[in-house]
Amino acid sequence: MLLVSENIQITNPAIQAALEGRDPAPIQDMVRRCAEAGAEALDINPGPLTRNAEEKMAFLVKAVEAVTDLPLLIDTANPSAMAAALETASGKVVINGFSLEPARLERILPLAECHQTDIVGYLLQPDGHVPMDADGRLTQAVALYQAFLETGLDPGHLIIDPVMVPLAWENGTEQARAVLDVIRMLPDVFGHPVRTMAGLSNLTSGASGNARRLLTEGAYAAMLASAGLEMALLNVFHAETVRVIRACTLITRPGPFSWEQLP
Amino acid sequence: MLLVSENIQITNPAIQAALEGRDPAPIQDMVRRCAEAGAEALDINPGPLTRNAEEKMAFLVKAVEAVTDLPLLIDTANPSAMAAALETASGKVVINGFSLEPARLERILPLAECHQTDIVGYLLQPDGHVPMDADGRLTQAVALYQAFLETGLDPGHLIIDPVMVPLAWENGTEQARAVLDVIRMLPDVFGHPVRTMAGLSNLTSGASGNARRLLTEGAYAAMLASAGLEMALLNVFHAETVRVIRACTLITRPGPFSWEQLP
Repeated sequence: MLLVSENIQITNPAIQAALEGRDPAPIQDMVRRCAEAGAEALDINPGPLTRNAEEKMAFLVKAVEAVTDLPLLIDTANPSAMAAALETASGKVVINGFSLEPARLERILPLAECHQTDIVGYLLQPDGHVPMDADGRLTQAVALYQAFLETGLDPGHLIIDPVMVPLAWENGTEQARAVLDVIRMLPDVFGHPVRTMAGLSNLTSGASGNARRLLTEGAYAAMLASAGLEMALLNVFHAETVRVIRACTLITRPGPFSWEQLP
Repeated sequence: MLLVSENIQITNPAIQAALEGRDPAPIQDMVRRCAEAGAEALDINPGPLTRNAEEKMAFLVKAVEAVTDLPLLIDTANPSAMAAALETASGKVVINGFSLEPARLERILPLAECHQTDIVGYLLQPDGHVPMDADGRLTQAVALYQAFLETGLDPGHLIIDPVMVPLAWENGTEQARAVLDVIRMLPDVFGHPVRTMAGLSNLTSGASGNARRLLTEGAYAAMLASAGLEMALLNVFHAETVRVIRACTLITRPGPFSWEQLP
């Protein structure tokens, strides 16, 4: 399972201040720390970017790429900012992402075709709501895949995000089971291997106590690995979760096992 | 996932000495500690029992039942000892177990019919070897199920053990993936829900370092939970693994989630 850090995001006050002040150092410090913690790709979430969206996005991408060769996932619903990121980046960029919501379908998805790049597709309803169960997600997956194929892109460019919700929701455990089922069922539904990504942090939103949060996040990460998840979006400073994912990867990937490969 | 302790076994010198000296106290102390650690059933493994097999087995069962109401899994290849356990026990007993090996098929399986009890069936070849892959295990599963059905017992009495091997084996990770696949596929193969049990300790046999062992055991336990495993046979004093399994059970079972239910 590939480790995608969610840590470069505008909700972190240090990142917000650095973006507002166009100061690359705190951002680059975060990039280095994420890489040291095990990140294999970096999600860049600049928030809504209501002002100077393109210029800010270009600044962010340049700041990050100056200190890393890791692939970047550009995590914004702002099409102009997304386009700016794609034009600025010199390394690998993944669009994160589109859904059946009209604004994203009409203005984000075409950027993947234009730049021939990977794109994450969320299993959300056209109204932006989370489907209630596995069947609801599969219905959205089929429609999303159809819309994606109309771009002419190779299916290997699509990464499905089944959309995690908090366990504490009324149907939270049912949703968590639905996500596992959907990841398992997608290859049969599409008729070929399907790339998938899931955001772990949503699961434990509202957790009472950090030990419980990390226990649950790690346990569910292993369940996702068992279901065949390709990419986990997470707080890479959750060292326990990172260790669990590495242990799972040693089991799920082909090739011999060695105890020395474990952290 | 039900927690079955493997801790009452003859390879523990204290248990061996207690059995030889017919001293129930050390055995009963272990039973209490297992229950406190979270055991929901107790595997009783008295070894080959070359002398006084029936009398020793009866002593063990009486000693254990004097201090617990937990179900017992009687883990011996000795048919006379197994019969003695079934005759002695007043509470729930599971036979652990049979396979396509002629001796077990001919002398252990009939005891399940005779006592109308649950029985564990190992996915081993008739020569006692571990199948090489998932297909090999499914082939044995079909033959084992056929033999089981000939007893006339209800299919709900059969618990399939897909047989874990050490990750450190040359094909160890392939085998670990095969076990997950088989647990997932059995309901389709048999055409109804299938009860399953797996022994976790074999997986980490030969581990270098206890932290690595517990990390890997916990991660794989969660993968087994994701695959739908019903019962985990493990060292219940591995508190980290027990915590992971409890977190998984909160996710896999129907009903609302509460952070307060977690250890």
